[in-house]
Amino acid sequence: MAGTDHRRRGTVGGPAIILVEPQLGENIGGAVRAMYNCGLTDLRLVAPRDGWPNAKAVAMASGADVVLRAARLFDRVEDAIADLRHVYATTARDRFMVKRVLTPRLAAAEMRHFTGSGEACGILFGRERTGLVNDHVALADTVLTVPLNPAFSSLNLAQAVLLVGYEWFTAGDEGPAEYLVTGHSAPATKEELLRFFGHFEEELDRSGFLRNAEKRPGMIRNLRNLFQRAAPTAQELRTLHGILTAFVGPRRRPSTRAGTKKRASS
Amino acid sequence: MAGTDHRRRGTVGGPAIILVEPQLGENIGGAVRAMYNCGLTDLRLVAPRDGWPNAKAVAMASGADVVLRAARLFDRVEDAIADLRHVYATTARDRFMVKRVLTPRLAAAEMRHFTGSGEACGILFGRERTGLVNDHVALADTVLTVPLNPAFSSLNLAQAVLLVGYEWFTAGDEGPAEYLVTGHSAPATKEELLRFFGHFEEELDRSGFLRNAEKRPGMIRNLRNLFQRAAPTAQELRTLHGILTAFVGPRRRPSTRAGTKKRASS
Repeated sequence: MAGTDHRRRGTVGGPAIILVEPQLGENIGGAVRAMYNCGLTDLRLVAPRDGWPNAKAVAMASGADVVLRAARLFDRVEDAIADLRHVYATTARDRFMVKRVLTPRLAAAEMRHFTGSGEACGILFGRERTGLVNDHVALADTVLTVPLNPAFSSLNLAQAVLLVGYEWFTAGDEGPAEYLVTGHSAPATKEELLRFFGHFEEELDRSGFLRNAEKRPGMIRNLRNLFQRAAPTAQELRTLHGILTAFVGPRRRPSTRAGTKKRASS
Repeated sequence: MAGTDHRRRGTVGGPAIILVEPQLGENIGGAVRAMYNCGLTDLRLVAPRDGWPNAKAVAMASGADVVLRAARLFDRVEDAIADLRHVYATTARDRFMVKRVLTPRLAAAEMRHFTGSGEACGILFGRERTGLVNDHVALADTVLTVPLNPAFSSLNLAQAVLLVGYEWFTAGDEGPAEYLVTGHSAPATKEELLRFFGHFEEELDRSGFLRNAEKRPGMIRNLRNLFQRAAPTAQELRTLHGILTAFVGPRRRPSTRAGTKKRASS
């Protein structure tokens, strides 16, 4: 046993979403869709007003049925959170309790850490109009409050689940925050780009556009920067070569490749 | 004119939300509520299917009427974006276009920078089921794609506006990501906390709980850490003093204050 930390035994799934006394089936269904949007699947329902199962919830959750089918029903919040180690309560308004308050973003990072250490988490959402009662907030370790326009911060149940779930999802999303979609073509190699610059500048010289020798170097730099900025693909460069040819006719020398290379690297 | 950068003349408001050919009034109203949740007020509608104004949009937008009343109507996307300098197109699926793709979070930081420099921004949202057509995506500088469960990434219009707007709002929100709500009481001073430790440890000694001299220092450290972690308020410490008194009776020496201070600082 020595040296074994049982809390590190394995990861658990994402946080449980615990809907406390939800009223409308449509809202349960909307929350289920939002959960599945964010990769969350552990739904717990505490005393839904209209009983369970609920046909309206099923209709609204279309496409996210897998979450709905696995939902668990509880009579009391205390039972719904019994197996969890960290519980968060979502509230929009100040409850005048002494309690740690986190943004969903910070809570998401914290929950990723907890669940990665095998410590199960759950998030309480109250009924639609009134939210959680204070006795249920007092069962939580931490309050979650979504930063929104203070003059208009009311969200419906599905939207509240979506924002909290979205932060959970993005906290674990390893995709790049920016990338260039290039479809079926690849970004051009620099050799391909320089070959186009050679062709383009050769035709600009021939047309007389670059005849001002003093301004020529700066103009060439500016044009190169313009096309660099557009980050053309190999296919797009072929299109641009074709446009040049359409404007001024085919290049005169057949051995353009070597010639262009030399000029571009000078 | 020299030295004047007209782009820096002043800040503009948040990005325009441009709904392209929206179909249901309820969805327009839901998007308006989501905008106002996030402090956005520049709504532009391009050819809404059921005409404008729309009674269902008004009913759904209740509470966010200020945004709805200021909405502007356009026939074409080109007209709706004419005064903007940076346009983002929201899409869920790959369009096989060569185009920069950003997460809403990175785009929000970028838009904060642009609007802070007086460069107006706008975000295009397509019609409910089909999204933007490719010709409208091609009018944008950048594609916005919300990172969500790849197996289930469809959002309704109001939810898409909410997530993008939420990132805009939080990118400018200077509130702390974590804080302790203390209601009407203030966090205790360290003097108040140390006075409680003194009272508590005095009663533990008297009861015999700390009679093991070897373990005593560690036990005291652990108990102090427990109460430190709870970050008690002044009011809560008064309650704890009262609980001690309820358990074991009043403290014997009247001049507890000086005595406690001395022990706590040793």
